[in-house]
Amino acid sequence: MHILITGAAGMIGRKLVDRLVADQGLGGRAIAALTLLDIVAPLSPPGFAGAVRAMEADLATPGAAESAVAARPDVIFHLAAVVSGEAEADFDKGYRVNLDGTRALFDAIRRIGAPYRPRVVFTSSIAAYGAPFPEVIDDDFRTTPLTSYGTQKVINELLLADYARRGILDGIGIRLPNICIRPGAPNKAASGFFSSILREPLAGQEAVLPVDEAVRMWHASPRAAVGFLIHAATIDLAPLGGRRSLMMPGVSASVGEQIDALRRVAGEAAVRLIRRAPDPAMNAMFKTIPGRFDTRRAAALGFTAETSFDAIVEAHIQDERALGSR
Amino acid sequence: MHILITGAAGMIGRKLVDRLVADQGLGGRAIAALTLLDIVAPLSPPGFAGAVRAMEADLATPGAAESAVAARPDVIFHLAAVVSGEAEADFDKGYRVNLDGTRALFDAIRRIGAPYRPRVVFTSSIAAYGAPFPEVIDDDFRTTPLTSYGTQKVINELLLADYARRGILDGIGIRLPNICIRPGAPNKAASGFFSSILREPLAGQEAVLPVDEAVRMWHASPRAAVGFLIHAATIDLAPLGGRRSLMMPGVSASVGEQIDALRRVAGEAAVRLIRRAPDPAMNAMFKTIPGRFDTRRAAALGFTAETSFDAIVEAHIQDERALGSR
Repeated sequence: MHILITGAAGMIGRKLVDRLVADQGLGGRAIAALTLLDIVAPLSPPGFAGAVRAMEADLATPGAAESAVAARPDVIFHLAAVVSGEAEADFDKGYRVNLDGTRALFDAIRRIGAPYRPRVVFTSSIAAYGAPFPEVIDDDFRTTPLTSYGTQKVINELLLADYARRGILDGIGIRLPNICIRPGAPNKAASGFFSSILREPLAGQEAVLPVDEAVRMWHASPRAAVGFLIHAATIDLAPLGGRRSLMMPGVSASVGEQIDALRRVAGEAAVRLIRRAPDPAMNAMFKTIPGRFDTRRAAALGFTAETSFDAIVEAHIQDERALGSR
Repeated sequence: MHILITGAAGMIGRKLVDRLVADQGLGGRAIAALTLLDIVAPLSPPGFAGAVRAMEADLATPGAAESAVAARPDVIFHLAAVVSGEAEADFDKGYRVNLDGTRALFDAIRRIGAPYRPRVVFTSSIAAYGAPFPEVIDDDFRTTPLTSYGTQKVINELLLADYARRGILDGIGIRLPNICIRPGAPNKAASGFFSSILREPLAGQEAVLPVDEAVRMWHASPRAAVGFLIHAATIDLAPLGGRRSLMMPGVSASVGEQIDALRRVAGEAAVRLIRRAPDPAMNAMFKTIPGRFDTRRAAALGFTAETSFDAIVEAHIQDERALGSR
């Protein structure tokens, strides 16, 4: 089989490629070819015997999407996106990459036409939701985002559902929880502290906590996120009916509960490396994030994630130790 | 003030123009100019003393949206759309007119830039919702449309909210119930029978009923729809917060209850003009429409509609008698 991954050079994209190469297949079928697309040329994965095409491209550029699907990949993981902060800062770039790029991809598939009908796994986001929230958000709750990034994600979910309904593609949108613990250097996302308050102390370094301990978020590990993608690519999607996107399982944890997990895994010395620097604006913003979900649709479809924050911390320690400094 | 109406030649557009001209103003301000846009040149309203610009244009055509907003209308009623059946039959046309046309309009406003920030009233639809439904649909219920038309409406709602959040426009999306009784000749919408089973018997003519009497729909009169538009153009939108679209009030009525209202208003002789011609496919389709809403957000904002189906029938008789054969 042939797999296309957009956003293949990103953190989740690289971990997905590593997993596919380690598994030597997807859903019981051998992988003959990988097309890896990103705006920076993705690296060819070591240890993969099949054909690799690394595409340095922006899907919104005329012709790029057509080229990406020309060889009719069986499975498309569509991860490529301008991140939240950038989509907010650069209106045109956010809509061009996140909306026009996705529409170009779906339309390129449409123009090939039947019988071509690839499985498309689209990564949506917890940013699909916007306050005000009930205490627990269920599968019937409205998607009213409060950022341009979230808006673009929900629009893509709607396009995915309509193109799927018309038989153009066999699509599923998975709303990822906050990915925690993000490996590597701190990034500029406002939500970065959810990871850095664990990642840096685990590495013996100081981290800054700008919000109070009551702030609650919905988390899953990078490993769980890759598991969602693999599962989404291989299950029968008929039970989704016309509702093609859904929230993924995760762990609801307050910042205080995250710190408790750090203490259990790494001791009080690690916890002491968290420096509190309250930022009232950040605190206000993160008081209105969706922190608790009832994800029974995902559970019925067999999606699984960690069930405790301790397990999320352990997954980080295992996976990043295995990868060394990468 | 200057008002732009897109879709001004449509049924609701014409009734809105008539109402604005009759009111001689909007929200207590005199109307100096009307720009009436549609794909067929809208007629100038008789009895209007101000300036009228009739634009025969498609907003998705390059330059059309810029031209429509060049004179910086204070209020924009954006009604223009390819209808449900056509958007389903012609994929490209539906997305081009309903999505690209709306985005062109919003981007034309954006390019003018601050301090220009018009009130934009966008007509969304009950088609924003898709089955499965609970018995009563509340304001927090998901919008997961099952048609391309509904998909385009919800995408426009999302764009409206994001452009409003960024201060580009002061927008509100009103999800219209089924408009009943639609005046004039039967149209080709599958939902046309909800109107024709009343309209034709009231005129002494036979009508065909393809579904069973248990089918339930959410209705408002054309007069109520125009009332929603006027109200949406004049109220303070701050209470909407980031959630800029909402379902309008209406009357939940089964087909049987519609027929009962016809009987009360026009007698058994009128009811006998309804010929039952059950269509299993139609019946199945209309068994999964959203028939009952809890519209307390709209009520809190002061939106009102008929409260009984009898009142909907009476509104039709009064309004169409007043208009004569139009």
